[in-house]
Amino acid sequence: MALLDKLLGKPLANHEEEEQKVGVIAGIPMLGLDALSSAAYGPEAALTILLPLGALGLVYIGPITIIILILLALLYFSYRQTIAAYPGGGGSYTVAKENLGIHVGLLAAAALLLDYVLNVAVGISAGVGALVSALPGLQTHTLALCLFILVFITLINLRGVRESGIAFALPTYLFIGTMGVVLAIGLGRAFLSGGHPVAVAAPAPFGCTAMTGVEAVSNGVTVFAKPSVRGAQRTLTAIVVILGVLLAGIAYLSRAYAIGATDPDKPDYQSIISQLVGAVVGRGVFYYITIASVLAVLALSANTSFADFPRLCRLIAQDNFLPRAFANRGRRLVYTLGIMVLTVSSALLLTIFGGITDRLIPLFAIGAFLAFTLSQAGMVVHWRRKGGSKVRVPLLVNALGASATGIALGIILLAKFAEGAWITLLIVPAALMLFHQTRRHYDHVAEDTNCPRPLNLTGMEPPLVVVPIKTWNTISEKALRFALGLSPDIVVVHISANEAEGFQLRMQWEKYVEEPIRQAGLPQPGLMLISSPYRRLFTPLLNYIGDLKAEHPRRQIAVIIPELVETHWYQYLLHNKRAMGLKAALLLKGDQQVIVINVPWYLNDKGA
Amino acid sequence: MALLDKLLGKPLANHEEEEQKVGVIAGIPMLGLDALSSAAYGPEAALTILLPLGALGLVYIGPITIIILILLALLYFSYRQTIAAYPGGGGSYTVAKENLGIHVGLLAAAALLLDYVLNVAVGISAGVGALVSALPGLQTHTLALCLFILVFITLINLRGVRESGIAFALPTYLFIGTMGVVLAIGLGRAFLSGGHPVAVAAPAPFGCTAMTGVEAVSNGVTVFAKPSVRGAQRTLTAIVVILGVLLAGIAYLSRAYAIGATDPDKPDYQSIISQLVGAVVGRGVFYYITIASVLAVLALSANTSFADFPRLCRLIAQDNFLPRAFANRGRRLVYTLGIMVLTVSSALLLTIFGGITDRLIPLFAIGAFLAFTLSQAGMVVHWRRKGGSKVRVPLLVNALGASATGIALGIILLAKFAEGAWITLLIVPAALMLFHQTRRHYDHVAEDTNCPRPLNLTGMEPPLVVVPIKTWNTISEKALRFALGLSPDIVVVHISANEAEGFQLRMQWEKYVEEPIRQAGLPQPGLMLISSPYRRLFTPLLNYIGDLKAEHPRRQIAVIIPELVETHWYQYLLHNKRAMGLKAALLLKGDQQVIVINVPWYLNDKGA
Repeated sequence: MALLDKLLGKPLANHEEEEQKVGVIAGIPMLGLDALSSAAYGPEAALTILLPLGALGLVYIGPITIIILILLALLYFSYRQTIAAYPGGGGSYTVAKENLGIHVGLLAAAALLLDYVLNVAVGISAGVGALVSALPGLQTHTLALCLFILVFITLINLRGVRESGIAFALPTYLFIGTMGVVLAIGLGRAFLSGGHPVAVAAPAPFGCTAMTGVEAVSNGVTVFAKPSVRGAQRTLTAIVVILGVLLAGIAYLSRAYAIGATDPDKPDYQSIISQLVGAVVGRGVFYYITIASVLAVLALSANTSFADFPRLCRLIAQDNFLPRAFANRGRRLVYTLGIMVLTVSSALLLTIFGGITDRLIPLFAIGAFLAFTLSQAGMVVHWRRKGGSKVRVPLLVNALGASATGIALGIILLAKFAEGAWITLLIVPAALMLFHQTRRHYDHVAEDTNCPRPLNLTGMEPPLVVVPIKTWNTISEKALRFALGLSPDIVVVHISANEAEGFQLRMQWEKYVEEPIRQAGLPQPGLMLISSPYRRLFTPLLNYIGDLKAEHPRRQIAVIIPELVETHWYQYLLHNKRAMGLKAALLLKGDQQVIVINVPWYLNDKGA
Repeated sequence: MALLDKLLGKPLANHEEEEQKVGVIAGIPMLGLDALSSAAYGPEAALTILLPLGALGLVYIGPITIIILILLALLYFSYRQTIAAYPGGGGSYTVAKENLGIHVGLLAAAALLLDYVLNVAVGISAGVGALVSALPGLQTHTLALCLFILVFITLINLRGVRESGIAFALPTYLFIGTMGVVLAIGLGRAFLSGGHPVAVAAPAPFGCTAMTGVEAVSNGVTVFAKPSVRGAQRTLTAIVVILGVLLAGIAYLSRAYAIGATDPDKPDYQSIISQLVGAVVGRGVFYYITIASVLAVLALSANTSFADFPRLCRLIAQDNFLPRAFANRGRRLVYTLGIMVLTVSSALLLTIFGGITDRLIPLFAIGAFLAFTLSQAGMVVHWRRKGGSKVRVPLLVNALGASATGIALGIILLAKFAEGAWITLLIVPAALMLFHQTRRHYDHVAEDTNCPRPLNLTGMEPPLVVVPIKTWNTISEKALRFALGLSPDIVVVHISANEAEGFQLRMQWEKYVEEPIRQAGLPQPGLMLISSPYRRLFTPLLNYIGDLKAEHPRRQIAVIIPELVETHWYQYLLHNKRAMGLKAALLLKGDQQVIVINVPWYLNDKGA
């Protein structure tokens, strides 16, 4: 326990929840890393697509950035409204469920859960990829580095929501600060450059991660200190403004300094950010600090998933579509199971793909845009239901958002279908099936165990008691004493392949059991010797209990299992695990008629 | 179960034991493979040692072989006597234990067990080594081939003792037959060669495996059909005679054909057997059949360990120096646990050494010669105790045997100490410690549970009953009904972090429990609501039970655990495993005062 305390922090009581809430300063690193990190690789992705155009491609960076900024602004205003309308946490699942029905809500949830897992794998492997391209000596350790970062982020998140905000604040603000300085200097020096030819190009799919960041804030409203809506909205504003400034600034300076993407497969490859920072401030100490913060933000962008995935699982579990354990809070008030499932699934993805997850990126965009579209559409219904004149503008904003993301979704689905987007069409329905099966099971349990009536006190006959024993010793004596207190109808059963053993027990039985019971005038327990030529224990006993059940279909049968409990692990190896196996077999193969009683025996502690 | 039947054969009843016994024909492949295989590599080892002498070395093969044959004859006569004196199985453990005391017996046993494990690893890897030197394409699969053969031998042995004799008869007799033909032809053709200069050389340690084979027969007397002593003696005679003829024949022909060892590290390496068979019969079909049977016998020499290791473990377990499960017979009347332990330990050795176990060979000889020496010394004491004039010759034979093996042990220990023999001096004492700790534990349990007195019928007060429940449903109703039959003193405990849950339960309690019990005039059970702000379940409950124990130090406390039993594995994931964890915690942290009762609830089977 002491080690756990060190690793995860001391347990938190329920009433300490308020103290765990965060403000804007901690909210940005906690929920915004995912979005901010796209400033680091968004321009790169856009320029790489334009690579075949050569230097000419550079002129398109402006318009592409403008389109992305517009989409971002649209989403910003949409989600600002969502946060205000759903102060209890308004993620796509909640909004779609409330307005479009539970099935649409679950569809959005399945898409988002898939996305969060992908985001962890892709984010960490992008960060590690950048690191190993800077230090090629680490190339062989790619997977190990990925898993190390994954475990690190998991541990921080198990320490509580507050902790992740605080732990990741340094790299986040270092990234924002250094990039801000680079942009300021660069803009100052290059003020005379400019000129933005207008051209239309399809929005590059790299925008999607920026937007899962936006979703995360709306889902995580409850993590903010009161007034939580204001905290969430301000955090969203801060994230979007910072992201917008970074994207616009990088795009402008790339043109001004005539920086283009280089082929990542060529040895002289250098990322856009690296070229830009080098061009503006030179390759001094400041350059390395900036690049280090970029790497950190990339790798830690996985944290957004850790903040949101467990929360979403909990919401689904509260509606009984996922195992209820997802709604249990661990020692630090976090949803431990959700965190663990996220860690294990992304570790699996990372391992399967050897730490290089580029091929997963197409899958990514579909989930995000599907969830956004459903959420926006849900909001449109929300406003229409509310009615009145005040809802016109918000309705329009959400309708515009829904159309934009819907169109983007269609484009991506078509463009990326063969590249792997079809996998989404397998995983999402599988998840939906799982949700419904789970719910069906819980409904059945609730129905079967519901007891809206007074305690039934009829038929309270004492049970038939069966006591399997191996030999006459203090362990069997204790069990028999308990049996005598429980019922007048007792059968002691001895099962053995060795007839001499049974004979010896019968001798002891007459002397040590029948005699004192006769003297006390109690009803005699029976002794049943069963021969087991195949040296089996369970089958003959279960058969015997089956016979008893057939004979007494209305009586309860209590099986008392005398058990020597080992208190040291090495003792555990020294005894046959028959008692344990028998209990498991009785419970699994049993029915309502059979009750299992453990009468444990403990060695006195001089026993080594 | 059907698959198990296919793989391991149908279960055997105890009374089928006699039918499982074997005669000489099956006894040789079962117990003799180890010894016979040394004909395949013994001469090779001797000639390799003589390699530096060049062609001159060849003249020494004669005297070395003679020394080995003398040692073998000595052991043969010694063990023949041992078999007659201990018809119940006279391995080193038994003989040393009976005559020199349990400590010496355990020392012999530890040495032999180590040897059996080594024999499996070394035998299989020697066979595979010969195979990959014939087919170098298989080199990369060395370890996989070793493990495959290991699993194959394990499965055969799990099918029963008879099966291993039958399954391995073909390669064994093929080996004996083809080698016999080669020797006959070779001797016929080379009758004129000869001349055996006498020279003294230390016996090469390669004799030791031949001799573990001898030990195996004496340990395994009980596997022979009656009269078992005669069966065992005849098998021993057959093995020794065949081995002697093969060794002498190969040695003679090697000289006659001027065959010497070649350096195994050079590319033109060829084994002695291969050279000899080629020289006598040419490289035709017969050559390949012979070589294949040599490989098979080498790889299957591990089988001797499988016949004897589980038997030896069982003997030790019957004296309570090893866990008793070693004395349990599985479905095919074999000692399953011993077989599994042998398989796992040798798989571990093979894996650690990558399937190439040459470095383990020095360890090998020490265990074997230590066990032989102790066994022979035991027999000397045996004859002296018996006294009379008839024991003089047997006593002399055993004394000679003891001296010869004792001297060999000393030479090997000195010569091979630095090469790894020192490891034996660590492993054997560790095994002895384990034996004694195990025995101490069993003695303590026996003492603590011994009950040589009549059933105690005083103090039969009904227990205090504690029923932890989460909510009022049919599961808790069933548990409460059982509690009411058990005792008038019942406390229902509800532990929750959520106060509303407790409040709701109190409402239901008044309506559904208190009311009908009042009407029935029964004693009211108590309801105890415990708040758990840290969301813990076990700690507050265990604390509460601790309080009860302190309050009622002389009463038994029965904890009734209502449990929903899942009948499908996937349902298992859907419920918190609280009942299971609670049972384990109660048993492990409990004491004689606490009894645990499972009242299981089964969903009716429409539940998916």
